[in-house]
Amino acid sequence: MRTSKSPVNPALILIDIQQGFDVLEWWGTGRNNADAEDNARLLLEHWRQKSWAVFHVKHNSVKPGSPLAPSHPGNAIKEEVAPLPGEPVIGKTVNSAFIGTDLKKRLDDAGITTVVIAGLVTPHCVSTTARMAGNYGYNTYVASDATATFPSATLDGKTIPAATVHEVSLATINNEFATVMTTQRLLEIFSLLSLDRELQVAGWR
Amino acid sequence: MRTSKSPVNPALILIDIQQGFDVLEWWGTGRNNADAEDNARLLLEHWRQKSWAVFHVKHNSVKPGSPLAPSHPGNAIKEEVAPLPGEPVIGKTVNSAFIGTDLKKRLDDAGITTVVIAGLVTPHCVSTTARMAGNYGYNTYVASDATATFPSATLDGKTIPAATVHEVSLATINNEFATVMTTQRLLEIFSLLSLDRELQVAGWR
Repeated sequence: MRTSKSPVNPALILIDIQQGFDVLEWWGTGRNNADAEDNARLLLEHWRQKSWAVFHVKHNSVKPGSPLAPSHPGNAIKEEVAPLPGEPVIGKTVNSAFIGTDLKKRLDDAGITTVVIAGLVTPHCVSTTARMAGNYGYNTYVASDATATFPSATLDGKTIPAATVHEVSLATINNEFATVMTTQRLLEIFSLLSLDRELQVAGWR
Repeated sequence: MRTSKSPVNPALILIDIQQGFDVLEWWGTGRNNADAEDNARLLLEHWRQKSWAVFHVKHNSVKPGSPLAPSHPGNAIKEEVAPLPGEPVIGKTVNSAFIGTDLKKRLDDAGITTVVIAGLVTPHCVSTTARMAGNYGYNTYVASDATATFPSATLDGKTIPAATVHEVSLATINNEFATVMTTQRLLEIFSLLSLDRELQVAGWR
């Protein structure tokens, strides 16, 4: 049976991959995973090739001085994943891409039930968006190596290295809110799902 | 000036402090902070004494076999913080106390702008509820020692001790979504706020 609507209709949600995250005077040094943007780009290229839904999310910071503020050039999305004309860009002012935005309505109106999340930074906007996506009932994936973060401070002022913050942040959402896996594994799985659908459409399955 | 509505109108939100968390066959061993329930009780007693708003949140798990399922005796709230008649108990089926519930409406209808969050477990239901509270714009506090958790597994199967999960979970919400501090410090601060209000009402300030 041919249908116009694919059962494989995953959305890629790219969170806050903005130039302002390179302003280390604001964020500090010690970011992990310099490959995050390139991995996000691999996902984006795959999604575009498949004509699947892509949502660019951009943080319009309201913090005075933030390089993510709309008045700062750092508000712009990085070149690696720059939106093409027609791709939706959703602005937000808090961590969650679901609060103060129409992201949920857009996903639901499009019949999207699966989301893949990547972007910056792991413990804040990525984690919070993935938590809400999972709790809203979306089949939620997070690309472990297409996200990154900076060191955090414990309550008593010790520094937690970015790699530890990243690892614990992903461990605490995996299997509870989302399925966390590498970009390569996500691309493999979504290619297989896509192939399965093509075989169905061709009448082979 | 006397008003009927106190400017200090903080709500205490106790998350999932349920007997089922003692079923270690389900959760595994290695939980940190055995004092979490007693510290939550200290907060609850203070809130009751002040007649401030209290919300008990209870997880009605839909996972087969979960000791937090409504059909399991572990669904009951622990004795230390058992609700009194008239205190609202809000059931939920996902991690966030704001998803699938009327908690936000209740807070907003009561004019509550400050929330203090405690309960189980730190990286899941407590963290997610605190993240959403902060992102919704509530002045959000989390009691660092009135919450606890179990070990987590990294993506490659290593065990992260509960104390580390707890510490990183609190570090990554502190100053971003919430102000995280000990129960004792919270009680001191909210007592001072309360005293300040009493002095205002008495015309001394």
